[in-house]
Amino acid sequence: MLSENAYAKLGSRFRRLLAIRDAEAILHWDLATMMPSGGAAGRAEQLAEMRAVQHGILSAPETGELISDAAGLDLSTEQAADLAEMKRMWARANALPEDLVTALSRACSACETVWRKARPEADFAAILPYLEDVLARVRDTAAVLSDALELSPYDALLDEYEPGGRAGDIDAVFADLAAFLPGFLARVLDRQAGQPQAILPQGPFPIEAQRALGVRFMERLGFDFDHGRLDVSLHPFCGGTRDDVRITTRYDETDFTSSLMGVLHETGHALYDMGLPANWRGRPAGEARGMSLHESQSLLIEMQVCRSPEFLGFATPIMAEAFGGDGPAWETENLIRLYTRVQPGFIRVDADEVTYPAHVILRYRLERSMIEGQMEARDLPAAFNEGMQNLLGITPPDDGLGCLQDLHWYDGAWGYFPTYTLGALSAAQLFAAAKQADAQINPAIGRGDFKPLMTWLRQNVHAKASLHSTRDILTQATGKPLDAEVFKSHLEKRYLKQAWM
Amino acid sequence: MLSENAYAKLGSRFRRLLAIRDAEAILHWDLATMMPSGGAAGRAEQLAEMRAVQHGILSAPETGELISDAAGLDLSTEQAADLAEMKRMWARANALPEDLVTALSRACSACETVWRKARPEADFAAILPYLEDVLARVRDTAAVLSDALELSPYDALLDEYEPGGRAGDIDAVFADLAAFLPGFLARVLDRQAGQPQAILPQGPFPIEAQRALGVRFMERLGFDFDHGRLDVSLHPFCGGTRDDVRITTRYDETDFTSSLMGVLHETGHALYDMGLPANWRGRPAGEARGMSLHESQSLLIEMQVCRSPEFLGFATPIMAEAFGGDGPAWETENLIRLYTRVQPGFIRVDADEVTYPAHVILRYRLERSMIEGQMEARDLPAAFNEGMQNLLGITPPDDGLGCLQDLHWYDGAWGYFPTYTLGALSAAQLFAAAKQADAQINPAIGRGDFKPLMTWLRQNVHAKASLHSTRDILTQATGKPLDAEVFKSHLEKRYLKQAWM
Repeated sequence: MLSENAYAKLGSRFRRLLAIRDAEAILHWDLATMMPSGGAAGRAEQLAEMRAVQHGILSAPETGELISDAAGLDLSTEQAADLAEMKRMWARANALPEDLVTALSRACSACETVWRKARPEADFAAILPYLEDVLARVRDTAAVLSDALELSPYDALLDEYEPGGRAGDIDAVFADLAAFLPGFLARVLDRQAGQPQAILPQGPFPIEAQRALGVRFMERLGFDFDHGRLDVSLHPFCGGTRDDVRITTRYDETDFTSSLMGVLHETGHALYDMGLPANWRGRPAGEARGMSLHESQSLLIEMQVCRSPEFLGFATPIMAEAFGGDGPAWETENLIRLYTRVQPGFIRVDADEVTYPAHVILRYRLERSMIEGQMEARDLPAAFNEGMQNLLGITPPDDGLGCLQDLHWYDGAWGYFPTYTLGALSAAQLFAAAKQADAQINPAIGRGDFKPLMTWLRQNVHAKASLHSTRDILTQATGKPLDAEVFKSHLEKRYLKQAWM
Repeated sequence: MLSENAYAKLGSRFRRLLAIRDAEAILHWDLATMMPSGGAAGRAEQLAEMRAVQHGILSAPETGELISDAAGLDLSTEQAADLAEMKRMWARANALPEDLVTALSRACSACETVWRKARPEADFAAILPYLEDVLARVRDTAAVLSDALELSPYDALLDEYEPGGRAGDIDAVFADLAAFLPGFLARVLDRQAGQPQAILPQGPFPIEAQRALGVRFMERLGFDFDHGRLDVSLHPFCGGTRDDVRITTRYDETDFTSSLMGVLHETGHALYDMGLPANWRGRPAGEARGMSLHESQSLLIEMQVCRSPEFLGFATPIMAEAFGGDGPAWETENLIRLYTRVQPGFIRVDADEVTYPAHVILRYRLERSMIEGQMEARDLPAAFNEGMQNLLGITPPDDGLGCLQDLHWYDGAWGYFPTYTLGALSAAQLFAAAKQADAQINPAIGRGDFKPLMTWLRQNVHAKASLHSTRDILTQATGKPLDAEVFKSHLEKRYLKQAWM
């Protein structure tokens, strides 16, 4: 009885915690989409306070005591998974003093605000003192967590985004990719040079029409607008809560293709959140598992599905109709070429899937160096540009196209970047397994019917929430843990063998 | 030293509190403007949790101890006012058990959600159980506060919105108005019958053009869009925070006049928040004083300024230009007639200033009866309609035009309604004093220059924040405490003597 009580009490405590975390998510969405610039200072206070309150609930002595009390209980497997998640959250929070939590939150808010101007102005000097402040507090955080969790400083940060993720495993997978990709890229570029050039459809493409088209595909994929929204922000993201998923994009009136694919990417994230099991709402085990699985869902939709010949065969006439497009640029084969064009470029979020891992490997190396104290923030622009030259053979002409392009470091998300590429590998592995399990998935996509795919994803990924580890979810769904093999086969098939390339 | 420490410690504690209150305000704005319907249940949890956290900070034993410690200190007059505000907030919170606070917040969230559908569908039966739930918790709250604060149950609720306000004083002022208005209304309607009919400009008026016009006037009045927004909601309001003021309106494509005046009204609220003293930000004494003064600022802008011949002389050509309007409907004299037309109607927020007090007096009587247990929620529709018949000679054809029209009772704002009419009287008294103090104010308004007026308001109202009582602020600014005399003179001048009526 005592033990049941402890678990039940933890349940209400974590329900409160998750409600505040959800409130924070909406405030963060508002900051990026709605808030006027003059609200920044006050919002920083609000967000810091939300962090402090969550930290206070987690690190209250009773929380630790209840977790100890509950540990001896006779819990179901799922309850035990729930308790394990509670313990994981508690252990992180309990290690961190509240003033470090709020100082980091404030430093990030201040830095993010400056970043909003510094990025378009390519002004790294303006943001450097703010970034130094963030980095100092991130290092402090990593050091404290490293001691408490007995992980390396980098793993201690990574574990927040990727529970169970370890730099050692990432190094192995990234080494495999880093060995494969340069040669592969050269072969793709060579083959591409002998193919017809992809033609970019000519606009203008009014924002309202772009938005309407995005909404149409979102609905088709299963995005429920009673539980979500689509808005505009400088840096596209999927935020909000599982009941109220807020995705964003940015529009370019001269080119609809990039924004549209961004919307489909964020829709993949959103469908994961919307598919989490309803009966585990408000409980840690009912949350999304981690960022590599989250990214696997966005990349499965974007890269595996929406850049496939099947999807584009279905989608091309709808795109043409939306903008009154006509002629060779609007033929399916051209749009396939366009959406699978490989070209080393400066911007990570616009990168094709062949060059994308290089962007991530660079950021992973740089952030490890900075966290481990081998590199300072002031050295970032030069190191970033040198890395781009080494990995992709191009040098950003300014920091707006270089180390300022991504929000992550400026907003405190250190240890996050590798999850993008882990997500890409997972997406390939999951989509291959899905198609193997149900031969109807691909033909249905060709008809604009995503139900067979969604049924498989709901069952094998979304409904698993955090009731299992990332490794177990992936192994159960695909028959093996994560490696780069399926991803490499996918790249070879799409970029070296696909007929219309 | 001990005493300085206690006040300083209270300072950080209340700064945290106000940050969470501000976060709650943004979440509430989001609920009304952005949130998809499926977010309602989660949002209710979030808002209840924000209330619980605020309540926890206020009612923590240390807060009470610090307030006691600080009471003996040698504080400046302003610090003493700040401490008095802290004590007022503490005394209310400390009296209320947390589960009552969260139960009320949840009941209100649930009821507000239902109200969003029940109002357009005029479906009182659908909302009755939710309203009964809210009322039960409001009565509990009033009873607990009544004991702790030694106020009547109604005054205990009123005091939240109108610190220092008492039903006894309201009764006296409302009796004066109730004696004056029926006869006055008859004279106005009689005079109006002998004047040319006001012509409603014919649309359609595209929403984008209406919005642009509203923004233009907002900017002219001094609304700072770096610190605020204009959006759409079912029930217009001014929300957000002093740094980030969110006002809303609703548009009707067949009639721009009502929405525009609503925007100007909310702008008056916003200018008060934006004008609060920057050096008292994050401190209880730096907050807006109370709802009657807040409403005085919106009504001063809407009723005293923007329906005046001076403002409309300036504004009419801009309105005509915005919509390409031409002809007699767009002449200044017609728009003055339209904007000062008196006609008993069903909807409070659309009421003219002559009949408006009747709407408030009715609600004040009804909510007192319900709080004091002399009337039940189920009796509301009949009592509301009977009151409308007695006071204004009209009976609402359905509850959508009757007791469902206002959000207040459904969202827990009991004891709020009288502040509207107190605000109308205060607005008349303040504007008369302002014009007396600076003869340039009215001519400047005629040129679209609001700086002289704003200078006076900043100095005499906005900058006073909560450093003085409502009564003292009004007395210092106008030379006497609130009564109905200046309001009555204003009505007589505008509705019986103005040449173009």
